[in-house]
Amino acid sequence: MRTLYHHPLSPFARKVRVALAEKRLEFGLELEKPWERRDEFLVLNHAGEVPVLVEDDGATVAGHGPICEYLEDAYPGGSLLGTDVLHRAEVRRLVSWFDEKFSREVTDLLVGEKLFKRLSGQGTPHAAAIRAGHANIHYHLDYVGWLTERRTWLAGDDFSLADVACAAQLSAIDYLGDVPWDEHTDAKDYYARVKSRPSFRPLLADHLPGAPPPKHYADLDF
Amino acid sequence: MRTLYHHPLSPFARKVRVALAEKRLEFGLELEKPWERRDEFLVLNHAGEVPVLVEDDGATVAGHGPICEYLEDAYPGGSLLGTDVLHRAEVRRLVSWFDEKFSREVTDLLVGEKLFKRLSGQGTPHAAAIRAGHANIHYHLDYVGWLTERRTWLAGDDFSLADVACAAQLSAIDYLGDVPWDEHTDAKDYYARVKSRPSFRPLLADHLPGAPPPKHYADLDF
Repeated sequence: MRTLYHHPLSPFARKVRVALAEKRLEFGLELEKPWERRDEFLVLNHAGEVPVLVEDDGATVAGHGPICEYLEDAYPGGSLLGTDVLHRAEVRRLVSWFDEKFSREVTDLLVGEKLFKRLSGQGTPHAAAIRAGHANIHYHLDYVGWLTERRTWLAGDDFSLADVACAAQLSAIDYLGDVPWDEHTDAKDYYARVKSRPSFRPLLADHLPGAPPPKHYADLDF
Repeated sequence: MRTLYHHPLSPFARKVRVALAEKRLEFGLELEKPWERRDEFLVLNHAGEVPVLVEDDGATVAGHGPICEYLEDAYPGGSLLGTDVLHRAEVRRLVSWFDEKFSREVTDLLVGEKLFKRLSGQGTPHAAAIRAGHANIHYHLDYVGWLTERRTWLAGDDFSLADVACAAQLSAIDYLGDVPWDEHTDAKDYYARVKSRPSFRPLLADHLPGAPPPKHYADLDF
């Protein structure tokens, strides 16, 4: 069985879980706590980060970016990038936006400070960082709203890896109840559409021992 | 003429300059100071970051990751990823290593603190960050040495985007004279091989007003 080493609250592992499901590729999940730096895991990924994908034959692909591109290369059906080269570039621009900019300016400061710092025993959350994360998220939700006023999905007419990357970040923050949905109805409507896709359902069933999600987290009509 | 908006000391713009040259695609350079947040530039890239590529017909691709993948899609000759899907995954794993991990753990802390902070008027360099950058670089140079003991180039037999990404980061730090080459002879020999490629020469001619590079920077026999 194809195996994905992941952590439930890693937005990047979430991205790959949704991408695999959108491409209808079956896989099993293996929980990894990257901060434990297990020797066996470091052999799979020298960077020590989730996600890592191991195929049936043992072939290993490390990192969310390489895994998503690998899935397109190895299983081109149901492409999440599309075929037109400039459209693919636009999808990838938005993927980078969420993987890098959103992640750095929002997710790291909320999920990173509030959850992973505690789980990994790296000290107490930094209040100023959390405040910055709460402030920064508005700008990004406005951008999501701006895009979805003009396009069906973030990158155009079709659901793409840009939507997967965006919803993966949002879902990790929503697990903490930290997305101010009521102030951003366009982004909320958009996220409700992503949430209702079958590929997204398993993420909504995630439940971290000792840190349950808020009630609306799994609700499709939140 | 194809145009690349860049900053000379941006490792990511350097990566794209080398990738374009390796693919023998002609281009002109347009200097952009991203911290000025020019309105015309924000239209090209809402994230406000270099590099941005504008094709002859006005088609625009923003971001070093999307640009490098676009170049492979649009100009597949002289591929910097190769053809085998698992090899492509290994190239991309190493590209992520240097674009994300090396950049965050080393380049941001040295070039970011010492140069871009001053250029953009964002305050004084943070001494502890610079110390961390100097400490972290050894681990990465060891990894480069370890890889090149086992492979001709970082990802295998052929020069690839992994080498471009690695050398782009190293070259930006070397411009400040902050790579401890004498303690890492394997990495030094490797970098000398990259430096001697025609695609790399224009980077060695870079000269920032008021911040000249050390003498060895452009020397192929440093």
